[in-house]
Amino acid sequence: MGFAELWESLLPVGRHGGTGGYRRYSFTEADSACRQWFMKTAAQRGLRVDQDRNGNLWAWWDCQNPARGAIVTGSHLDSVPDGGAFDGPLGVVSAFAALDQLRARGLAPGRPVGVAAFCEEEGARFGVACLGSRLLTGALDPRAARGLTDGAGVSLAEAMTRAGLDPAAIGPDDDLLGGIASYVELHIEQGSALAGLDAAVGLAEGIWPHGRWRLEFTGRADHAGTTRIPDRRDPMLPFAATVLAARQAAAEHAALATIGKVTAEPGGANAICSAVRCWLDARAPDQATLQRVTAQVTTAARAAAAEQQVSLSVSQESVTPPVRFDAVLRDQLAGALARRGVTAPVLPTGAGHDAGVLAARLPTAMLFVRNPSGVSHSPGEHADPADCAAGVTALAAVLEELAFR
Amino acid sequence: MGFAELWESLLPVGRHGGTGGYRRYSFTEADSACRQWFMKTAAQRGLRVDQDRNGNLWAWWDCQNPARGAIVTGSHLDSVPDGGAFDGPLGVVSAFAALDQLRARGLAPGRPVGVAAFCEEEGARFGVACLGSRLLTGALDPRAARGLTDGAGVSLAEAMTRAGLDPAAIGPDDDLLGGIASYVELHIEQGSALAGLDAAVGLAEGIWPHGRWRLEFTGRADHAGTTRIPDRRDPMLPFAATVLAARQAAAEHAALATIGKVTAEPGGANAICSAVRCWLDARAPDQATLQRVTAQVTTAARAAAAEQQVSLSVSQESVTPPVRFDAVLRDQLAGALARRGVTAPVLPTGAGHDAGVLAARLPTAMLFVRNPSGVSHSPGEHADPADCAAGVTALAAVLEELAFR
Repeated sequence: MGFAELWESLLPVGRHGGTGGYRRYSFTEADSACRQWFMKTAAQRGLRVDQDRNGNLWAWWDCQNPARGAIVTGSHLDSVPDGGAFDGPLGVVSAFAALDQLRARGLAPGRPVGVAAFCEEEGARFGVACLGSRLLTGALDPRAARGLTDGAGVSLAEAMTRAGLDPAAIGPDDDLLGGIASYVELHIEQGSALAGLDAAVGLAEGIWPHGRWRLEFTGRADHAGTTRIPDRRDPMLPFAATVLAARQAAAEHAALATIGKVTAEPGGANAICSAVRCWLDARAPDQATLQRVTAQVTTAARAAAAEQQVSLSVSQESVTPPVRFDAVLRDQLAGALARRGVTAPVLPTGAGHDAGVLAARLPTAMLFVRNPSGVSHSPGEHADPADCAAGVTALAAVLEELAFR
Repeated sequence: MGFAELWESLLPVGRHGGTGGYRRYSFTEADSACRQWFMKTAAQRGLRVDQDRNGNLWAWWDCQNPARGAIVTGSHLDSVPDGGAFDGPLGVVSAFAALDQLRARGLAPGRPVGVAAFCEEEGARFGVACLGSRLLTGALDPRAARGLTDGAGVSLAEAMTRAGLDPAAIGPDDDLLGGIASYVELHIEQGSALAGLDAAVGLAEGIWPHGRWRLEFTGRADHAGTTRIPDRRDPMLPFAATVLAARQAAAEHAALATIGKVTAEPGGANAICSAVRCWLDARAPDQATLQRVTAQVTTAARAAAAEQQVSLSVSQESVTPPVRFDAVLRDQLAGALARRGVTAPVLPTGAGHDAGVLAARLPTAMLFVRNPSGVSHSPGEHADPADCAAGVTALAAVLEELAFR
């Protein structure tokens, strides 16, 4: 089965008929269908499938020499709300397709090779990105994770239980990690740097430090038609000031700050809100800058809230320190590609990835595939078939270099 | 049955356990329970109940002289999201309680007397306030009404059909209106003017012109962690500028402008929004001022949208011209109250009411009951029992004056 056929087999799962975007949220029906697809795809290749205690899936090509550290590749299958088809799935589909290429050439691995699909990478349901890899590596406290809730108030523990997993068992898994020598994640580029460099594939240098903060403005619900302006405690106003302050802070510090999620309560067109909650996503080239940006935004938010007699609580939902991917591994991959005539530029990125989380424990690397428009987290996300094929070939070269020699 | 017992019998219906606020939306289970309560309450009093073609309920105390125009009192039973207990229901409960008082004194009407409960007054489900009275009087086109949809995409026509009503039959009902001589609505004050004047009840002078506009900002969904600031088309930014512009315009023109409802799509914490929709509620002492306020807000919104390469569509969902309640009727009610030693101050209001819609066709009047905090459209809305009792007594005096002499 070639890449195209494999890609098509996953494409309809969790796609929304109206928007054309994907809604593959953890432990939902769409997620279950993605997992079925993964298990079936692995089974068709004679790969052994494990689900670890944290809900991550692993397909193993075992070998005669189990003592040697495994090489794992993969990505994730979940999506942001109305996300694109490529962010995550491209890495998983390419992993299977690369193994197919190697097998078709009669090669067998000299060490175990795995394909991983990490759970809740986007954090779209429970608000913490890279949930599965964070639990696996111990970067997230299992107790805190169990208590995370989705928009409907369902906890992670409840959702896992309903999906047949045991939430009491989540947490670090050093046995599993200890058996892995390196992790390589292929991912669509979420920007257009490769397009500008006229390159089909690239290698990641590192990931900007980034984090997510929840801001909750609490005022007082009141009638929009009768409450005098001086009597109002309207949380929508300091929220609006915060949106503008976030953009201002990002521009001043050559960083990124975004508010893409907001809920207003009670949400009636003729009522002043009682509360407005929003999520600030901030990223910067280094941690000091990230801190300056978020301090500037929260200071502006506090001042605007005080001016409207609105209270504000700010809670940090996640912060990821900067990641520099293993330079030795990257040079090794660049060399393997160069020997096949492929020049892969080295790029930084503002996007978080499971590879970034795993980098705290293992040598990791990332391959990027060109995204002509740079659009991501949107139904308009796209990579050309020729570039996807170049990605599979590059990943096969990399796996051959690491595990098949 | 006294006021308190009648009040308590309605109090649990549609109350949300978490917020303590009411969620009585048209043609839902809670609405159906409110209608059952109305029919049972009328039946206990031997009143004949009609549901008109537009979903409004009428309880009639018929009389020997059906030729003479009826006197109708009442209000509505639906609520804003997490609204208070009084806005609407106080007028309906007080109407039944006032009739009980008159009957207990052995009085019988000299003309038909009705208690009305109008449908979808708040517009909380289908976005158009005073839907039932607007359809009844012909102020809203039935075709446009049938196509209105709720947040889940259910049309008014579908919701009415599911509730056993015929959406094809909605529209003006001149027969019904022609039989009514006057309408008097009792309502909790949605402000604290009576508290400042040390008065338990007041009379309405008029209603400010007011309207609702929907603003839809359309940008482009993108990854929050990788999309450079100059490449962004983020609709959240012009939305935020519009919130601040609305407050600014209201303050400059001694008017009111509120944004209490907003939806962001796709609404992921790590994605730039593709679209943000919000609703502007604006009210002013006169129509020229209302026009200046909304023009100032939409001009600011367009400028902010253009700056971010975001498109903006503005649609007017409803505009209600100013209402001046019938001065002759008001003087007659003031006289009847004064003869019983009650001084009722005359107040303007920014809130829309079915009485304001009916004023285009009939002499109408409104009685307000003191609201100590002025809070409304919120679970914190409150009126003291003594003031509610004063309201019932005042309404009984008014009905006696109009129908029982």
